Amino acid sequence: MAIADEASCDAGASALRELGAEVYRGAKGLVEMVARDDVDIVVAAIVGAAGLPAALAAVGAGKTLALANKEALVVAGSLLMPLARSKKVPILPVDSEHSAIFQAMQAGRRQDIKRVILTASGGPFRNTPLDTMRDATLADALAHPTWKMGNKVTIDSATMFNKGLELIEACWLFDLKPEQVEIVIHPESIVHSMVEFVDGSTIAQLSPPDMRTPIQYALTYPDRLPGPAGRMDFAQSLRLNFEPPDRKRFPAIDVAYDVATRGGTLGAVMNAANEAAVGAFVGGWIGFGEICETVQATIAAHRFQTDASLDDLLEADRWAREYVETMIAKRVRETSICIRQHGSNL
Amino acid sequence: MAIADEASCDAGASALRELGAEVYRGAKGLVEMVARDDVDIVVAAIVGAAGLPAALAAVGAGKTLALANKEALVVAGSLLMPLARSKKVPILPVDSEHSAIFQAMQAGRRQDIKRVILTASGGPFRNTPLDTMRDATLADALAHPTWKMGNKVTIDSATMFNKGLELIEACWLFDLKPEQVEIVIHPESIVHSMVEFVDGSTIAQLSPPDMRTPIQYALTYPDRLPGPAGRMDFAQSLRLNFEPPDRKRFPAIDVAYDVATRGGTLGAVMNAANEAAVGAFVGGWIGFGEICETVQATIAAHRFQTDASLDDLLEADRWAREYVETMIAKRVRETSICIRQHGSNL
Repeated sequence: MAIADEASCDAGASALRELGAEVYRGAKGLVEMVARDDVDIVVAAIVGAAGLPAALAAVGAGKTLALANKEALVVAGSLLMPLARSKKVPILPVDSEHSAIFQAMQAGRRQDIKRVILTASGGPFRNTPLDTMRDATLADALAHPTWKMGNKVTIDSATMFNKGLELIEACWLFDLKPEQVEIVIHPESIVHSMVEFVDGSTIAQLSPPDMRTPIQYALTYPDRLPGPAGRMDFAQSLRLNFEPPDRKRFPAIDVAYDVATRGGTLGAVMNAANEAAVGAFVGGWIGFGEICETVQATIAAHRFQTDASLDDLLEADRWAREYVETMIAKRVRETSICIRQHGSNL
Repeated sequence: MAIADEASCDAGASALRELGAEVYRGAKGLVEMVARDDVDIVVAAIVGAAGLPAALAAVGAGKTLALANKEALVVAGSLLMPLARSKKVPILPVDSEHSAIFQAMQAGRRQDIKRVILTASGGPFRNTPLDTMRDATLADALAHPTWKMGNKVTIDSATMFNKGLELIEACWLFDLKPEQVEIVIHPESIVHSMVEFVDGSTIAQLSPPDMRTPIQYALTYPDRLPGPAGRMDFAQSLRLNFEPPDRKRFPAIDVAYDVATRGGTLGAVMNAANEAAVGAFVGGWIGFGEICETVQATIAAHRFQTDASLDDLLEADRWAREYVETMIAKRVRETSICIRQHGSNL
């Protein structure tokens, strides 16, 4: 077991050692732990850039990597994928969409894949009037119709930055050009994604929305085992809807295609700016409609860099968060001056 | 080239030989032709039991068999499949549903397959009132909503004997128990069938209804090549519906499950009785609702036999056709006597 926070580590380590656990200390300990000889597979589920060094260390040590945090590839796909190829290490997706693509891909040869159809629920604002959506509250944004998830990813579903991150992840994971990935709204979240082959045949993976299915598959691949998750029930009538996303309603999609195309440090910047903007929205500092505007402004201000090292990527991540915080703090200051000056009229 | 009809063969052979074609004569010639050393793959598309000896000869000679006539397996799966296994010859499905299952199966190991979902358009009578359906005309029965096919298979779609034949075919082809196959109505004919694995994940194959897709796949397998058939268009809204079939409306389904379970000569009998009954319906001798009743009566009258040889199966086929014709001729005679006796009242 590794405990990142060194103070907590001191407090808990002796109790854990009594239970027979070996305790690794801090970020460095994590990197040591994943490289142990008796490790077969590393499930990377640490949110954000914090899990990145350990994910790279696991692949560097030749361990199969089951990837549950999409940030690792969005930020550092340019490092992780070539390393995995050179070490001949499989990177197995845990995200339901990427698991679906991975499963569907097995119905043909890699070189016969024409494109990927990445499905999206469309989140809670699929049919909300655009004006109302701009000023949506936190409670509105957290009311996801099909998946129960953490706050960050639920808000990302509402803006569709989640699908944007997944687009970039899919490009890295499956060596696709962004124009080979089509995002399609599928409100029922039953078809988790699809692969179209050159002969016009499309293979889809379906299951009730339950993360246990893709998690288990990553752990048992290439085998499948009976598991606790539900299966499709065709004894009931079922209707599956698909529609193209409204790019005006979800500007995050175009932002993500641009980032996927240009690459370099932009993935790190988009991801970090979005994380910071979502934090500001949750904190009540910005409106829902300003999340994407904030990310766009940050990308526009960024000094784009290709062939980035891990340090470059982590620095881009740090810079973007600081940029968003500074921008929002400045605006909050101006607004409060404005309120002080005009307060009598309010 | 083989020409089954020996008189036509005499007439055409010299002209064909001038074009450089080698001409094989009659049913025996067909069997010789498929076993030639320079043959890699045999596409079996001869309708009915007539193609059976050649299909067996092809597999016996170690040729890959692309199977477009479902009768071969319905009648003689008990001979064809063990032969293919002993000769290590792949039998590749050409039927769109079985091609879909075959493609979807590749997303997992054979032993991890839980069940198969065989989709059916439901034909033209999916929502027709039951009384009206019983007395449907030939034109009604030929108005298939999604596929353009020959008369026999279109009428089989209307009774759902087509799906019954496919159920039996799927059991032989993929070594499934009948209870592992679920028939589901899918009116759009986009999802051509699905495979559910033990982990609860379901893999589906989708394409616009176009036989060129599965035919091409059988010829290029395991590769895929760009082809002339259309592909899915997700830039348009798409709605896919699934519902369980009404077993009262489609009694052929229960007949087929029973035949699939009992095996032996029953596949040959069901197939032949259905062919003869459809012929009688097309000829105007029986009503639409009597097709399934005729098949049921024939099965009930049949002396069921397990461990049947090819001769036993062909004899069961012959017997069933004769039984249906005799039964219908007898009724037509009785009806005409009845009309003669009561004609003045009509």
